[in-house]
Amino acid sequence: MTDALDQLAINTIRGLSIDMVQKANSGHPGTPLGAAPVAYTLWNKVLRYDPADPLWPNRDRFVLSAGHASALLWSLLHLTDVVAVGPEAESDPGRTRAVTLDDIRAFRQIGSRCPGHPEHGWTSGVETTTGPLGQGAANSVGMALAGRWLAARYNRPGFDLFTNDVYALAGDGCMMEGIASEAASFAAHQGLSNLCWIYDANRVTIDGHTDITFTEDVSARFQAYGWNIVTVADGNDTAAIERAFHDFKAEDERPTLIVIHSHIGYGSPVEDRSKAHGEPLGDAGVAATKAMLGLPVDEPFWVDDKIRSHFGEGIGARGAAARSEWNTLFDAYRAEHADQAAELDRIFSNDLPDGWDSALPVFEPDDGGLATRVSSAQVLNAVAGAIPWLVGGAADLAASTKTTLTAEGMGYMDKAEPGGRNIHFGIREHASAAICSGMALTGLQSFWSGFLIFSDYARGAIRLSSLMELPVTHIFTHDSIGVGEDGPTHQPIEQLASLRALPGLLVMRPADANEASEAWRTLLNHRHEPSVLALSRQNLPTLDRSTHGSAAGVARGAYVLAEATDGAPTVIIMATGAEVHLALAGRAELEASGVPTRVVSMPCWELFERESQDYRDSVLPPAVRARVSIEAGSELGWARWTGDAGESLAMHSFGASAPLADLLPHFGFTLTAVVEAAHRSIDRAAS
Amino acid sequence: MTDALDQLAINTIRGLSIDMVQKANSGHPGTPLGAAPVAYTLWNKVLRYDPADPLWPNRDRFVLSAGHASALLWSLLHLTDVVAVGPEAESDPGRTRAVTLDDIRAFRQIGSRCPGHPEHGWTSGVETTTGPLGQGAANSVGMALAGRWLAARYNRPGFDLFTNDVYALAGDGCMMEGIASEAASFAAHQGLSNLCWIYDANRVTIDGHTDITFTEDVSARFQAYGWNIVTVADGNDTAAIERAFHDFKAEDERPTLIVIHSHIGYGSPVEDRSKAHGEPLGDAGVAATKAMLGLPVDEPFWVDDKIRSHFGEGIGARGAAARSEWNTLFDAYRAEHADQAAELDRIFSNDLPDGWDSALPVFEPDDGGLATRVSSAQVLNAVAGAIPWLVGGAADLAASTKTTLTAEGMGYMDKAEPGGRNIHFGIREHASAAICSGMALTGLQSFWSGFLIFSDYARGAIRLSSLMELPVTHIFTHDSIGVGEDGPTHQPIEQLASLRALPGLLVMRPADANEASEAWRTLLNHRHEPSVLALSRQNLPTLDRSTHGSAAGVARGAYVLAEATDGAPTVIIMATGAEVHLALAGRAELEASGVPTRVVSMPCWELFERESQDYRDSVLPPAVRARVSIEAGSELGWARWTGDAGESLAMHSFGASAPLADLLPHFGFTLTAVVEAAHRSIDRAAS
Repeated sequence: MTDALDQLAINTIRGLSIDMVQKANSGHPGTPLGAAPVAYTLWNKVLRYDPADPLWPNRDRFVLSAGHASALLWSLLHLTDVVAVGPEAESDPGRTRAVTLDDIRAFRQIGSRCPGHPEHGWTSGVETTTGPLGQGAANSVGMALAGRWLAARYNRPGFDLFTNDVYALAGDGCMMEGIASEAASFAAHQGLSNLCWIYDANRVTIDGHTDITFTEDVSARFQAYGWNIVTVADGNDTAAIERAFHDFKAEDERPTLIVIHSHIGYGSPVEDRSKAHGEPLGDAGVAATKAMLGLPVDEPFWVDDKIRSHFGEGIGARGAAARSEWNTLFDAYRAEHADQAAELDRIFSNDLPDGWDSALPVFEPDDGGLATRVSSAQVLNAVAGAIPWLVGGAADLAASTKTTLTAEGMGYMDKAEPGGRNIHFGIREHASAAICSGMALTGLQSFWSGFLIFSDYARGAIRLSSLMELPVTHIFTHDSIGVGEDGPTHQPIEQLASLRALPGLLVMRPADANEASEAWRTLLNHRHEPSVLALSRQNLPTLDRSTHGSAAGVARGAYVLAEATDGAPTVIIMATGAEVHLALAGRAELEASGVPTRVVSMPCWELFERESQDYRDSVLPPAVRARVSIEAGSELGWARWTGDAGESLAMHSFGASAPLADLLPHFGFTLTAVVEAAHRSIDRAAS
Repeated sequence: MTDALDQLAINTIRGLSIDMVQKANSGHPGTPLGAAPVAYTLWNKVLRYDPADPLWPNRDRFVLSAGHASALLWSLLHLTDVVAVGPEAESDPGRTRAVTLDDIRAFRQIGSRCPGHPEHGWTSGVETTTGPLGQGAANSVGMALAGRWLAARYNRPGFDLFTNDVYALAGDGCMMEGIASEAASFAAHQGLSNLCWIYDANRVTIDGHTDITFTEDVSARFQAYGWNIVTVADGNDTAAIERAFHDFKAEDERPTLIVIHSHIGYGSPVEDRSKAHGEPLGDAGVAATKAMLGLPVDEPFWVDDKIRSHFGEGIGARGAAARSEWNTLFDAYRAEHADQAAELDRIFSNDLPDGWDSALPVFEPDDGGLATRVSSAQVLNAVAGAIPWLVGGAADLAASTKTTLTAEGMGYMDKAEPGGRNIHFGIREHASAAICSGMALTGLQSFWSGFLIFSDYARGAIRLSSLMELPVTHIFTHDSIGVGEDGPTHQPIEQLASLRALPGLLVMRPADANEASEAWRTLLNHRHEPSVLALSRQNLPTLDRSTHGSAAGVARGAYVLAEATDGAPTVIIMATGAEVHLALAGRAELEASGVPTRVVSMPCWELFERESQDYRDSVLPPAVRARVSIEAGSELGWARWTGDAGESLAMHSFGASAPLADLLPHFGFTLTAVVEAAHRSIDRAAS
């Protein structure tokens, strides 16, 4: 049985949630009605979370993977009186609370702190941005992994600094998504006993009862992964729910799945129907629901003050005590372990160690050169020495992507070695990217690697890393037809263009070892953007920087790599990555035939776009209309740089299976083609 | 025990496979060595497949989901003497065999019929293009679904025309990928007892033993989905393997997973090691392996003639008899069921019914109009009446994407109604797209629908539909910030650009109901390209075509929708979809102020690019340099059309949660902005 005050709190959450959906005339009432008991019980009885400091490092995390149920989260953040901190407070001076009743009344309206889906960084207390199903669940795995890592690295005898748990509330939709399957398998392998997924099994989705397409035994599936399964037969039975959380806390080997059999739209006229999922209940429906729940029917957004107090005495008091105790502990820790405490300060302020970039290698000129996957690996390893909380791994391609941290003691993060720095993500690209975001949300500097072609598998999660402004590094090698013999299924064509189209993401394709080094400097210095690092499989010469523009130009996105004779170019050849070397060869040939030719290396369009018009014009002078771009990928987007008189050497089809030496002429990446394109453009510019 | 001839055949496959990898100095020897016994047993003892007609409609399908093991498939296609048909034969007159020994010797070389991964349409006998893991397995679900559908629709008493089975060989990698999880759950729900996945459980991937990250109980997981599980303890035990296939055939409720415990690199010095996965064995390794297998060490590409005969007597004789019997049956069927037989002729020649497009609706002008998701739904339903083998469904968004086929008797494809036309794909976007490809490979006209934002989840499979040139329709509604209140997690920004970057894919974004109708005509008439249909959530006016350019212009990709006064534009405004109406409003304002303005609707860039330079210049005359584009998505790619003097109204960030009416001005999609951009461009063009 549920205590009367608890019940009133639960129903208050329900009332607020359906009111905000009704007022917005848009949103999802069903899950808030059905999942309010478990959400309430978790928050007010279990969660170690201080609403007065929603960034407290050892807080338990609550992830609403079923992000469409945002009304539930807004109700909780309001009722528990979470304060505004971080970007929310900075962008809105005078704001003290994460979610006010006015914010709730403005649900889904422009500028509201209560948008349609939870947005991390916009509303305090939102641990991660959710909505696309399965993502939050996968993020939570990264958070649990990172939490355990922090404990392994920083806890000391007498100083259990990191003891927090991670909860994710997921619905039937999350359970159907492949990304959640990947993440669940990984979490079980890792033995993340600090992770609890709450499966709100209401068995209803937009198209109807899950019987129409989803009849697997989810519990048995998770058991097969290696999870601890706890079942709550009645989603309104808060005592059973509380016991389930105790079962989770008692488990110390496996992640826990709590399966809660709930009722979508509970208490409403559309209970147990898909209509409850994503439509307002209507005035009559709201009234009927409130009547059924014993709430005042005529008072929208009604909150009894004693409910606020009740939360204050529950989560508020418990969280304040826990945080205060922790602060005392951390002060003592700082006294005894000053270096570690200083590292933690940086971790929790999204900062890097002073002078970390002095570790960056400089590469000597070398005509034979290195594949950028190899030079980048050397840079990564150097950086890993300087940034102790840089962690990551490959999606089962370490031998190819070369992203293993090889120094003594780096180790592999696993239940046997939770403080390891390398991660075996397995052949689970989508989850890998989302897990990296979860780790970044916990303060770690995370990366994962795969082939560029497999960025396709991870796009959903890459996008969210950008929407959340997380400094995750997505490392993709084998970045063109340079893949060679593996053929068109493995040769990226459209991937560079399609990643460049993604807002806020830095797409970097270095041309040689020193550009790779500068790319790492640049991407790590951008603390609020994820990066894609596109790296070659094949060797590329290491350019002599005494006779070429400095690789420091990477930070500006594009720079003059080789100036035309007398500094007065007739034509500009621009390129990225491997094709920069073809551009240089083309320049040599053109210059030899008396055509002054500039080569511009363009490793990162996004950064170049942010430069001043003056700088951009200095690199690509408007008067020089004869321009050629070379990139072994889709032409899409190059016209912006090449202009009306320009020419682009690009891929206009899928690739083919053959050694690269045969593919280059097959697809037109030859010196002759470059020179001819230059002359065509020169003629057009003159006409 | 394995019969000596069988063993020699198995070892011949192994020898050919490692020889071709060695000669190419590139490729994957491990899986061919380990999986040769099951592949051999399936092909020579079980598969109903006639190498003399690899397109025989009732053939069993074999999908090599572990596409990196292509050497195994090339060996099989060669030894079973599969003939060259279809595109392979057409493109290479004189070629009679799918894979000759010369082809095998040219493994992974340019132009070879034995590329690095199996490519459908390039080499006869390749049922689907594989390599990116999990895709083939998901395709196989579509094939099994389509096979059962054909049986339900076309079999008649006494005429069991369609009785074939579908096999997919998958490795540990496929099992880790989310797409395979989605597809497996769906297949079990559907009760696809004609589907058999062979899990080559060698427990070794590129980064090492699967113990490092993949420790789930795969059999228990599949049992939880609802699969029949059969285990073969020794991957070399062909008798046990044969029994497993019998168990599969005896099962008539569930799909079957045969778990085969095999040894990667069997017989080689690197057996059971990840080194066996993707590196040539080296000359010494090849020699050692051949010695161990009892093959002549000094004869690369050795095939004893009796092995060819052995295959001829096995799969050859069995297949020929089955096909001959079937041909007789089909002749009799044609006599009794002429209409059905004629439909089947079209299905198997990738054709549509004569005059199917007379069903396309024409919409009357209407200022209120319809969302294109709604008008497209009307078109889809009309078309579905004319094309009986058009099938598809939504990834749990039918109520929003409106793609349900609603006519009497359409029904839902399920084990209870295998001939239904609608499919509940569930919240499994990636698998949905791959299943549609599998259905298309079986001849069905397939579609699936979701929100445009979720195209991200399905990119891996969308790409392969294009690489395979399959006429799958990927329907994506909610195609811009028009999503409104759901906010940035659900508002596509970069998706149009990133799909346009994908080679061979037609990305169509109709501006009104009649463009939607013409888009369907166009995309269905393209029999060798998949399409993306990007549709609005919000209502759009139905234009009066008596005063605007004909919607038939959709077929050319772009067309003049509204001409400037006197046919002499000062400025051109180009747009797609919903933004076309803003372009028209801008034109009205500009014309009223004396600026002759043309509006160009550009629903499909790819088709416009294929038009003659003359046509393109007639739509976008080079002399008219003042140009404005409007599209509520990424600007990437528009500069190609707007040129040096152009302006683009586009999205430069993620979206926001609010009603669309508030988002449009917030993001600069206003009449004023259009007019100002036009004047800026006019000034620039003049300077």
